[in-house]
Amino acid sequence: MHVTSAPELLPPADPGFASARLGIIGGGQLARMTALAALPLGCEVSILEPNPLSPAAQLTPLTVAGDWADAETLQQFAARVDVITLENEFVDAGVLRQLEDAGHKVFPTSASLALTQDKLLQKEALVRAGLPVPEFCAVASPEALAAAGERLGWPLVLKTRRNGYDGKGNFTLRSPADLPAAWQALRGDLNELFVEAFWHFAKELAVIVTRGRDGTTATYPVVETVQHHHVCHSVQAPAPIAPELAARATEIALRAVTAVGAVGSFGVELFLSATGEIAVNELAPRVHNSGHYTIEACACSQFENHVRAVLGWPLGSTRLLAPAAVMLNLLGPHRAPGRPLGLARALAVPEAHVHLYGKAMSGAGRKMGHITALGPTVAEAMATARQAAHAIHFHPLT
Amino acid sequence: MHVTSAPELLPPADPGFASARLGIIGGGQLARMTALAALPLGCEVSILEPNPLSPAAQLTPLTVAGDWADAETLQQFAARVDVITLENEFVDAGVLRQLEDAGHKVFPTSASLALTQDKLLQKEALVRAGLPVPEFCAVASPEALAAAGERLGWPLVLKTRRNGYDGKGNFTLRSPADLPAAWQALRGDLNELFVEAFWHFAKELAVIVTRGRDGTTATYPVVETVQHHHVCHSVQAPAPIAPELAARATEIALRAVTAVGAVGSFGVELFLSATGEIAVNELAPRVHNSGHYTIEACACSQFENHVRAVLGWPLGSTRLLAPAAVMLNLLGPHRAPGRPLGLARALAVPEAHVHLYGKAMSGAGRKMGHITALGPTVAEAMATARQAAHAIHFHPLT
Repeated sequence: MHVTSAPELLPPADPGFASARLGIIGGGQLARMTALAALPLGCEVSILEPNPLSPAAQLTPLTVAGDWADAETLQQFAARVDVITLENEFVDAGVLRQLEDAGHKVFPTSASLALTQDKLLQKEALVRAGLPVPEFCAVASPEALAAAGERLGWPLVLKTRRNGYDGKGNFTLRSPADLPAAWQALRGDLNELFVEAFWHFAKELAVIVTRGRDGTTATYPVVETVQHHHVCHSVQAPAPIAPELAARATEIALRAVTAVGAVGSFGVELFLSATGEIAVNELAPRVHNSGHYTIEACACSQFENHVRAVLGWPLGSTRLLAPAAVMLNLLGPHRAPGRPLGLARALAVPEAHVHLYGKAMSGAGRKMGHITALGPTVAEAMATARQAAHAIHFHPLT
Repeated sequence: MHVTSAPELLPPADPGFASARLGIIGGGQLARMTALAALPLGCEVSILEPNPLSPAAQLTPLTVAGDWADAETLQQFAARVDVITLENEFVDAGVLRQLEDAGHKVFPTSASLALTQDKLLQKEALVRAGLPVPEFCAVASPEALAAAGERLGWPLVLKTRRNGYDGKGNFTLRSPADLPAAWQALRGDLNELFVEAFWHFAKELAVIVTRGRDGTTATYPVVETVQHHHVCHSVQAPAPIAPELAARATEIALRAVTAVGAVGSFGVELFLSATGEIAVNELAPRVHNSGHYTIEACACSQFENHVRAVLGWPLGSTRLLAPAAVMLNLLGPHRAPGRPLGLARALAVPEAHVHLYGKAMSGAGRKMGHITALGPTVAEAMATARQAAHAIHFHPLT
C-alpha cells in the first residue's frame, strides 16, 4: 500500500486533443466549485495555492503549495497545464503578462485583469465605454480627498485601487470629520486610493456574463443581491424588477464585460435607484458569489461556462430550470471549526441544496458554504433556503 | 514549491460532528461520480483502488493505491475514514465482515453484499420475499445443466454466481448443442454456475432505490433501459409505460432492496413482458448506470443520496426537474486514447450535458462517459443527447 503523490498522476499532453489541463491560481471556494464543474468534462485540474489544506486542494491530487506572486513558482505551474485561470483578482497582471510572453495561455488575459484589478482603471474603462458609474476621482492626499468631498458631496466612499473585497478596502465618510479616520483606515500613506460619490441605490443587482475566447457571450438572469456589512447575504433569481429594467441591466453588464476584454465568467455588480437609474458598481474578473445559484438553477452553471470559455469551448445554456431560485451564504459567526453542526437537519429540508467549502476554520463573516433552493416563487425558494440555513451552526467544540 | 502528498491533507476526526470522511472501495466512474456528489457536502473522500490513475483518483488527494482483497490494506484504509462504501460488488463480503467486526462502518453491510454479490443467493432472497424472478437453479455439472434445460426449456441462460457484469459471466444456450461451449466459456470447472429460464421481455426497466441506515427509502422514477450486446446503451426517464405498471415496478424494486437489507443507492433491473408481467432480473448493490441521468434530472442525484444514506443523513428529493430525460453511454469502440475528439462539437449542442470519466484508454465496449439531456418529451431529449453523443469519437492518434 502506498499513497500516490501528484507527479505520478500527470499524464503527458495529448497533441491533437482538446486542451484539458486546467490550472487555477487560488484554492478557495471559487476554485473548488470551478474544479467540480471541470472534472465531469474530463479536465485535469491543478491548483496553485499556498495553503495545502485549501477548499480546492481537497479535490485534486495536483495541488502545488506555492506563492503565486513568485515568478518561478508560476512558471513551473504553467508548464504543467494547458490553460491558466484565476479564482481571484489579486494576482498581479504584470506577473501574468510574463507567463503570456513565455507562450502560456492565461484567461482572463493579463490585459483584461489589469483593467479590472485596479478599480480606478476599471472605472475609467467603463466610462470610456459610455457606461454609467458613480462619479469618482483619484485622491493622492488627504487634501485631495477633502477637495473631492467638496465637489462630489457627502457621504463619500473612499476605496483602495487594488485588493479590496467584501467591504475590505472601502470606507464611507459621512462628513469631513471622518477624513482622518478614513485616510488612516485605508493606509493612504501606503495605498493608492480613489473616491466615489455615494450612490443612493434602491436595490443592488448582479449579472454573471460568460465571454468566450472568440467573443461569444452567455448572460445569466439579473439577480438581486442583499449585502449585510458589505458581505453578500442572499441572492434572488430573477430579480424582482420590471422586464425593461432587467433588459437594460443585462445590456449594461454585457457592454461592461466586453469593455474590459473579458474571457470567462465575470460578475457585474449594479446599483438600481428608486427612479430606475442603473450604474455599474464593480466588475469582478472571475466567477462570483452572485452566481452560485446557477449550479442547480441553470442548465449550465457559471462555473462550467467559465471552464468552457477559458478552454475555448462553446458556451452552455444559461436557462433557469425553475421559476425562481434563492442562494443564502453560510457565514462564520466567529472562530470555530469549519465543519458545522446541524448538517443533517439542513439536509432534511426538502429541496434544499447544501454546499460546504471544506474550510478548516470558520471566522467572523467568513464564507463557509451556501444553500440554494429552487421554487415556484422567490418566496417559496427563500423559505426553503432559510430553513436549511438556520439549521447550520458553526460552534466551537466544548 | 512542493507538491503535497496525501497524509498532510488528512485532518483529525472532529468528535461531535457528523461523520464526513467517506472511503470508497474502487476508483472507477461510479466512485468518481459519488465523490463529485460528496465533495460539495463537505465530505473528505478517500479512494482505495489499485490503479493510481483511476477516474476517481483524479479528484482527491487521498487515494490509496492498493488491493482491496488484501485484509491489511483494507484495515489501513478503514482507519482513515468514518464510513466505507463500495463502487462495485466484487469486494468479498467476508473481508468486509472483518472490517465490521473490527468496529468499522461499512455500507452496504457485508450481510447485504453477501446476499447480492452471489446472484444465486440474491435470487433465493428475492424468492423468499415473494418477488417474481425467472425460474432458476444451481448447476454443478454439465449433466445438471442438461437436465435443467429439459426442465426449464430452451433458450436457457447460464450464469456465474459471482463477478459477472455487462454480459460478462452470462451465456445464452439456444439448444442442448450449445452446452459444451457454454460450460467452457464460463469455466464451469472453476466457477460456481446457475441457470435461468430465458425471460421473453418486451422492455427492460430499472429503478434506483436509495435506502437509509434507518430504513427510510427514496425511489427514483422507473426508467426504460436499452442494452446493446448486454451493455447499457440508453436510459429513458420516465419509462413509456402505464402508470399502474410503473407503480408495480416501483413497489417490486422497493421490496427487492428491502429484502437484501440495502443501505445506499441500489439499482434494480426489471423485465416487463408484452402482457404486463414484471420480473426482477438483477439487483446491483451500488449506484447504477441506469441512474446517471439523475445528476441533472433529479433534485438530488442517486450519487448524493447514496452519500447521504451511507453517512446516516436524511435522503433528498428524487423529483424529476423536467418532463423527460435521456442518458446515452459513450462506449469505446476499440483501443484508443481515453480523451475523445469532438468534445467541443458535443458541447455546442444546446442543453446536452457531457460527462467524461477520465480513463486513460478506451477499449471495445468500455464505458468512457455519458451524455444526459432533459427535455419536454423523451423524443426531444433523445434528439439532443444523440446529437451530442454522435459528435464524440475515440480515435487512435495518427
